[in-house]
Amino acid sequence: MNYGIVLKVLGKLLFLESALMMPALLIALGLGERDLRAFVITVAITASAGFVMGRLPVEKQKMKVREGLSIVTLGWVVFSIFGALPFVLSGTLSFVDAFFEVVSGLTTTGATVVTDIEILPKGLLFWRSLTHWIGGMGILIFTVAFMPTLGSGTFHLFKAESPGPTADKIAPRMKDTAIILYTTYIVITLIEMALLTVGGMSLYEAALHTFGTVGTGGFSTRNASIGAFNSTYIHLVIAFFMMFSGINFSLYYKGFKGKWHEIFKNEELRLYLSIIALATVAITLNLRFSIYENTMLALRDAFFQVNAIITTTGYATANFDIWPDFSKSILFMLMFVGGSAGSTGGGIKIIRILFLFKLIRREISKIYHPRAMIPIRIGGKALSGDVNVSIASFFALYVMTFVMGTILISLEGNGLVSSASAVAATIGNIGPGFDFVGPTQTYANFSVPSKLLLSFLMLIGRLELYTVIALIAPGQLRERVFQG
Amino acid sequence: MNYGIVLKVLGKLLFLESALMMPALLIALGLGERDLRAFVITVAITASAGFVMGRLPVEKQKMKVREGLSIVTLGWVVFSIFGALPFVLSGTLSFVDAFFEVVSGLTTTGATVVTDIEILPKGLLFWRSLTHWIGGMGILIFTVAFMPTLGSGTFHLFKAESPGPTADKIAPRMKDTAIILYTTYIVITLIEMALLTVGGMSLYEAALHTFGTVGTGGFSTRNASIGAFNSTYIHLVIAFFMMFSGINFSLYYKGFKGKWHEIFKNEELRLYLSIIALATVAITLNLRFSIYENTMLALRDAFFQVNAIITTTGYATANFDIWPDFSKSILFMLMFVGGSAGSTGGGIKIIRILFLFKLIRREISKIYHPRAMIPIRIGGKALSGDVNVSIASFFALYVMTFVMGTILISLEGNGLVSSASAVAATIGNIGPGFDFVGPTQTYANFSVPSKLLLSFLMLIGRLELYTVIALIAPGQLRERVFQG
Repeated sequence: MNYGIVLKVLGKLLFLESALMMPALLIALGLGERDLRAFVITVAITASAGFVMGRLPVEKQKMKVREGLSIVTLGWVVFSIFGALPFVLSGTLSFVDAFFEVVSGLTTTGATVVTDIEILPKGLLFWRSLTHWIGGMGILIFTVAFMPTLGSGTFHLFKAESPGPTADKIAPRMKDTAIILYTTYIVITLIEMALLTVGGMSLYEAALHTFGTVGTGGFSTRNASIGAFNSTYIHLVIAFFMMFSGINFSLYYKGFKGKWHEIFKNEELRLYLSIIALATVAITLNLRFSIYENTMLALRDAFFQVNAIITTTGYATANFDIWPDFSKSILFMLMFVGGSAGSTGGGIKIIRILFLFKLIRREISKIYHPRAMIPIRIGGKALSGDVNVSIASFFALYVMTFVMGTILISLEGNGLVSSASAVAATIGNIGPGFDFVGPTQTYANFSVPSKLLLSFLMLIGRLELYTVIALIAPGQLRERVFQG
Repeated sequence: MNYGIVLKVLGKLLFLESALMMPALLIALGLGERDLRAFVITVAITASAGFVMGRLPVEKQKMKVREGLSIVTLGWVVFSIFGALPFVLSGTLSFVDAFFEVVSGLTTTGATVVTDIEILPKGLLFWRSLTHWIGGMGILIFTVAFMPTLGSGTFHLFKAESPGPTADKIAPRMKDTAIILYTTYIVITLIEMALLTVGGMSLYEAALHTFGTVGTGGFSTRNASIGAFNSTYIHLVIAFFMMFSGINFSLYYKGFKGKWHEIFKNEELRLYLSIIALATVAITLNLRFSIYENTMLALRDAFFQVNAIITTTGYATANFDIWPDFSKSILFMLMFVGGSAGSTGGGIKIIRILFLFKLIRREISKIYHPRAMIPIRIGGKALSGDVNVSIASFFALYVMTFVMGTILISLEGNGLVSSASAVAATIGNIGPGFDFVGPTQTYANFSVPSKLLLSFLMLIGRLELYTVIALIAPGQLRERVFQG
């Protein structure tokens, strides 16, 4: 393996991270809070490490598969370790807790170990929410887009970080694709911030909740999450922006280019909106005929929560853990569905669910027409047999990881619903689950091994399993073509 | 559709069913219990209906796909309806309850709505357990094997009823395959009956528990299931025979033919035994360090329960619902794994799990060798791309059916673990689940719509989803090749 290139890219990444910590440092400086010293030390360490590593002489610039997988996996881990320092150095959290919190932020999970968020210094809170915004679009695409010398390897990194089975190259050059995606991201961010400020939120809280929304993260500044804001306007703005953030970002670019036709006929978007509509109606009815007396309130909370879960954001306006079983089981299912490919959302992704529906439909057709060759088409394009099998195996691996994770977390003994939903909520990058990890609870009470396991699940969920698993797989799978 | 041939085969099936009820009728006659009248009427109705339908003039003998699917699906439904009559006519159960009970028996699920089994008349109890034995091997393979005129269509019926992705033709002629399988089945049955009798069970109870074991059903004569027998010998005999019944029956024929080499290198068998060993050790340790003081007792109960669940039998020697979460979540997972292809067990089947492992392993290899063509081999034979996709789609359909079933059953409001495990335990043909449907509970308290839904799940689980779903699928999938 070419360790030089791995260290060099990680160095660039750390240097970028130190720059991204500057706003939080400035807030701490301006307010003179206790986190200032921690930020100064962290920025100094991170920038120095990044500077030294980024200057390492590299013999060959060429990246192979293993270098790519290592850069992405280590990149996320190293970014999280340095990102955890402000929490540790300010005496706010233990290292494991701080690592969990930053992994949760960066992977846009939003699971927290902080039991009282509202007493955190403002700088720390800003950094905590900013990690959502950074992780939403991916940390390496940004770094690497501005390292033109890496050549063809760049696309592998982009693909590993980009959610969904296929990475859309919007523009021929990776750098241009990155610029288009980030511009879209920034525009959506600015619009939501403006709308929340108009609704009476302070600029600070508007910014932090926007980071949590557009990154589909879910960290709030309030212990009661969005439920703390007693404003239907704010609930709806956040609900709609969660929904927008679960849509493939390349569609916005198409809209900007006037290609509305392509948006309307996009099958993934149609399935995504249909699932949201159906789940919202089902939950609204269930709530109205059980614990809600007001249909409009039921509709508002159902719409918010469906979007919060399907986009894997995890914000809450109501304690959905006390909703009836029917509503809870629908939300539980949505934890697995997730957002669209090319969005900031996690989970299995709508496009894979769409594919599985089509696969099942084809299988039924084949019973009647056993000799027919029936390709599976998405967006008019027939998928190759390799892509078919690859998507199907992703689904199987996702389910198996969920099952194995649940068995291990169940050693904590908090009940099967707690264990299963904690694992579903971390691997799917949602945040809150049910019962022991419900929306009014935190992950603080898990043991250290469980916190590390859940951090690992958040990371492999965000990097869509194969990136990390291929890296840690036994050598025989790497060295020779497998024969079994 | 050729309705003539469908009715004719159903007639033969009913005639066979009336014959199969005779032992129960004779028991009722011998003991002079209250179920005699019900059996006499049922046998008369069933035999007459069978006789008339079986004599219908049929223009063409030829079966197409739709006739095959209709015969299998309707065959199981009609058999269950007539099989329910003795419970209804004796005033023991309502029609829906009786239908649920017989579907549960025939599909070898073993979920019961009878809260006190021990007061049932002996004839009824015999019929209830016999349905396990009948359904274990399949009801149509037996009927059709003795209707030589059906020709090539027979294999479709055999395939639809035979568990697993591929149906082994042991002998060139279907009739010979059926005879070999039934002979094996009868030999195993007789050995277990003898062993249980030696252990002190009455011949009657030995027979009924043998039907429950070799059919991987799980109906007992006691409310406390196998736990009622305070004998390690009996626990072990039943545990081992459950394990044997979850093995592909064609392997026994290979053993009989002296092909031991083929048995030892059988990958499905090795994975099956490995999962049993691993799960038993994990649960034994978990029990020993929590609620059990005696390691041997922990091992005995763990071994029994692992075999009871993985083979989808569902017998219990302990109330595993009060075991620690770790043990429970392992058992929950085993509900999905199921027995081997070509066994009497339900669930997803070991061979499909083996395939999914290999699929994931290949996907990892492909990351390093993107252009390599790597076939997936099971037992040395490379599977075609079609078979790959077909197994993967089965897994997806199984998981999706489980999820949709859980959402619907959660309308009952018994908690998510109850709903999820009730659905997993019916679609996988296990029987008991957790909490509201735990081993000390029954399915009696579900509403009528839920009982019908659970009956439907048992049927589609037993017929491996596609048989039933292809039949009820929208016409467009049947009429033309699908273009999406």
